[in-house]
Amino acid sequence: MTKTNAGRFFEDYSVGQVIRHAVPRTVKMGERALYHALYPARHALYSSDQFAQACGLPFSPLDDMIAFHVIFGKTVPDVSLNAVANLGYAEGRWVTPVWPGDTLRSESEVIGLKQNSNGKTGVVWVRTRGLNQHDELVMEYVRWVMVRKRDIDAPAQDTVVPELKSVVPAGALVIPKGLDFSTYDFDLAGEPHRWGDYAIGEVIDHVDGVTIEEAEHMMATRLWQNTAKVHFDATFRPDGQRLIYGGHVISMARALSFNGLANAQMIVGLNGGAHANPCFSGDTVRAWSEVLDKAETGAPGVGAVRLRLVAVKDGGSFELKGEDGKYLPHVLLDLDYWALMPV
Amino acid sequence: MTKTNAGRFFEDYSVGQVIRHAVPRTVKMGERALYHALYPARHALYSSDQFAQACGLPFSPLDDMIAFHVIFGKTVPDVSLNAVANLGYAEGRWVTPVWPGDTLRSESEVIGLKQNSNGKTGVVWVRTRGLNQHDELVMEYVRWVMVRKRDIDAPAQDTVVPELKSVVPAGALVIPKGLDFSTYDFDLAGEPHRWGDYAIGEVIDHVDGVTIEEAEHMMATRLWQNTAKVHFDATFRPDGQRLIYGGHVISMARALSFNGLANAQMIVGLNGGAHANPCFSGDTVRAWSEVLDKAETGAPGVGAVRLRLVAVKDGGSFELKGEDGKYLPHVLLDLDYWALMPV
Amino acid sequence: MTKTNAGRFFEDYSVGQVIRHAVPRTVKMGERALYHALYPARHALYSSDQFAQACGLPFSPLDDMIAFHVIFGKTVPDVSLNAVANLGYAEGRWVTPVWPGDTLRSESEVIGLKQNSNGKTGVVWVRTRGLNQHDELVMEYVRWVMVRKRDIDAPAQDTVVPELKSVVPAGALVIPKGLDFSTYDFDLAGEPHRWGDYAIGEVIDHVDGVTIEEAEHMMATRLWQNTAKVHFDATFRPDGQRLIYGGHVISMARALSFNGLANAQMIVGLNGGAHANPCFSGDTVRAWSEVLDKAETGAPGVGAVRLRLVAVKDGGSFELKGEDGKYLPHVLLDLDYWALMPV
Repeated sequence: MTKTNAGRFFEDYSVGQVIRHAVPRTVKMGERALYHALYPARHALYSSDQFAQACGLPFSPLDDMIAFHVIFGKTVPDVSLNAVANLGYAEGRWVTPVWPGDTLRSESEVIGLKQNSNGKTGVVWVRTRGLNQHDELVMEYVRWVMVRKRDIDAPAQDTVVPELKSVVPAGALVIPKGLDFSTYDFDLAGEPHRWGDYAIGEVIDHVDGVTIEEAEHMMATRLWQNTAKVHFDATFRPDGQRLIYGGHVISMARALSFNGLANAQMIVGLNGGAHANPCFSGDTVRAWSEVLDKAETGAPGVGAVRLRLVAVKDGGSFELKGEDGKYLPHVLLDLDYWALMPV
Repeated sequence: MTKTNAGRFFEDYSVGQVIRHAVPRTVKMGERALYHALYPARHALYSSDQFAQACGLPFSPLDDMIAFHVIFGKTVPDVSLNAVANLGYAEGRWVTPVWPGDTLRSESEVIGLKQNSNGKTGVVWVRTRGLNQHDELVMEYVRWVMVRKRDIDAPAQDTVVPELKSVVPAGALVIPKGLDFSTYDFDLAGEPHRWGDYAIGEVIDHVDGVTIEEAEHMMATRLWQNTAKVHFDATFRPDGQRLIYGGHVISMARALSFNGLANAQMIVGLNGGAHANPCFSGDTVRAWSEVLDKAETGAPGVGAVRLRLVAVKDGGSFELKGEDGKYLPHVLLDLDYWALMPV
Repeated sequence: MTKTNAGRFFEDYSVGQVIRHAVPRTVKMGERALYHALYPARHALYSSDQFAQACGLPFSPLDDMIAFHVIFGKTVPDVSLNAVANLGYAEGRWVTPVWPGDTLRSESEVIGLKQNSNGKTGVVWVRTRGLNQHDELVMEYVRWVMVRKRDIDAPAQDTVVPELKSVVPAGALVIPKGLDFSTYDFDLAGEPHRWGDYAIGEVIDHVDGVTIEEAEHMMATRLWQNTAKVHFDATFRPDGQRLIYGGHVISMARALSFNGLANAQMIVGLNGGAHANPCFSGDTVRAWSEVLDKAETGAPGVGAVRLRLVAVKDGGSFELKGEDGKYLPHVLLDLDYWALMPV
């Protein structure tokens, strides 16, 4: 019995601790095919080698969110197996594209700890780095979760709350080497709207909806080797429902955002995000975006746009929060990210 | 709001117009693995590199219907987003096999227009061509759909009804370069029946049935980047059902036809087809075929057979149409195609 | 009608008969990606090329159970289409790893026959060999099934009951060429427990559970080109349920066993196995293992461990059998296999 992994509890973490997460993963075109079967993903740079080559890349990388999910999935057994809540993300950057055949692994450094006043749980901040087989940084992000204590009588650890940027500065975004949108083919990409056509404050309704199935979210979540039981075991919750991995909603919303943001080709920064309400099988997910900011980049023809991506269920409105400042019940996701777009 | 694609309406088409469809797609072995997981596909030429090599090909191409679905899927945002009905297919030909790593894109030329007498809709005929990264023609077909008008007061366009062949002549079929069935291994292929064993008029019951699941038809349809919302959004129809992409039924029936037509290895011509009735999750799909014609080809050991492939649901009989000439309610698909078989 | 395969009946088999099974299959990384989406598979050797290379292999082979399923699936149309029951396995050995791009085919030799006293059915023993494109033996196993007679008045065949080993001797296990666990990275593998840490008789609860979905077991079963209709056609059984392929339960239980047996990297022997009770969609599958034996191997750092892997449903206990010696209703699978582990 003692050989199974019970996961880490709050008192198992210490600031400065570095955790090498298990099970590196080689990803190829099979993972991409599945990603495109599980989500209505159509951004041309991630669909066609020739389109990617016309944009200065050697060929088409794996989708930005594949990188995130694989790197995130590895952290689950060490970071969130005993998590009560996934509280937030910050300072996320995609640094090196993932090419078919690359092998990804993850490491996390504990950068903050704060026991809650109830003495039963605490908040753990980790900075996770995904590396490829050349030890190059693929992406990094900060995440904080609320974790149970094993022993509620264990003494409280010293509180360390990291200072985190509310937004990744545009100047800190990494543009993939060689990226060049100066001869971008808008016909093949699917929409004519360029960076200059988007105004700060503009809201885009992505119109389409997808009703979520158990088999699909479980396949997606397993593909990232995220094995948190609440996603798979219908007997785990009293209501017999499987909680859907928040990343499934992110990828669904990002894919739906093609309709109106087909040219927001690559995600390069993650400023923040909240999984506002749980998502379950049978929910119909829709999405809308708001343009939060715009920035120039040094790469030819490439602009950056900061977007809020909101996923809602079952005909929810564009309202995000109630008078109490809390997310309305139909809001599933509120994500803040930077994407690259042809100017 | 104005950035999302509302699709084309009847008055947006004009005869001679050429539409370059968006989002080229690189397809590899991942797409094949998914195809073989979603359908009981077993034709040996599409399963084994060595079997394909023994038939004169460099290695195993992607399934003929993968080519069709990818090329078709790209046309949906431009052709059928506002379609009321998918009326027919004609003059379909597979011209160049799709090899793993190829990138496919589609173009359609409008070849006919006819406003309906109700003034609300019209019929649009397009000839779609799928091209690979070398600009070689992969396949082509004509399809006609009934499309809504945006403005019912818009003046009717001049009627142009294209003349279409009811059957692709056997002499116009393209045999893949190098194809040679003269040393065909019937054991490995799965059945002993050769071209000479099939008689015109013969009917084959494919026996097996598959009960359709939502997750499977959605994954298949997304894989072809066909994003028509009626396939994904359970809130779209008043009855809460998701309409299954007609191509899902084609591929299911084709795969089921292995049992009795294991040697009808490659589809090379599409003479016509009707999606007779809608298919929904929970339907159990079965199939039967009728031999409509046979023809010789110039390739060694290769014969062509013209087949009617009929998909039915839930224990339907071999009857196709009622006394009123309309398809009986259990008929899902009536497809007329040419396949290549060892003589 | 006569062209469809009705399958073999008991009187169609004779001892010494060799059946070449149809439809060879080229398997690549797409099949792996699907395997890892359908099961929570995380054994590092099958996940990362670099991990496999650090263990002396050229790169990561396809999962041991992919080899089994593909080879098994090919035998279904010839061996078990008219089977009433799958009775057992013995003398299974994995001999050559499957590398991406290999093409697998199967042959079976009939090694035993015994008509049942009711005169309606008989038991058929076959030794199945899976071969790759170089005609190398990939794996072999003996399986016996109860098969219907076509004609109950057909005379009984001479009874031949093969002598089968109850356990594959450790000395007969084939260690993959080059395998070396002497610099094994336990952090990346996911658990610290080595061969020396496991005691004979030790029982390990794998804790996690997965609730089974129709779409997933059908996709898995199709991927192995196993087309037995009872897995796909909800109208086949009077209760409207689709019987889940027993191999789906094996792979699910094996993947769940990562939690506690993360270092039981490669399956190399199959001593026996019983599908104790049928599994249906909606069942929640859990697993536990018992260490049955341990053996040294000649390979550096590599030990062998003989494990009982038991899959249960819906909160079943660790009890296997009732007082009557029969499996308890919650037991789905009782499998006896050899795996390789770092010493």
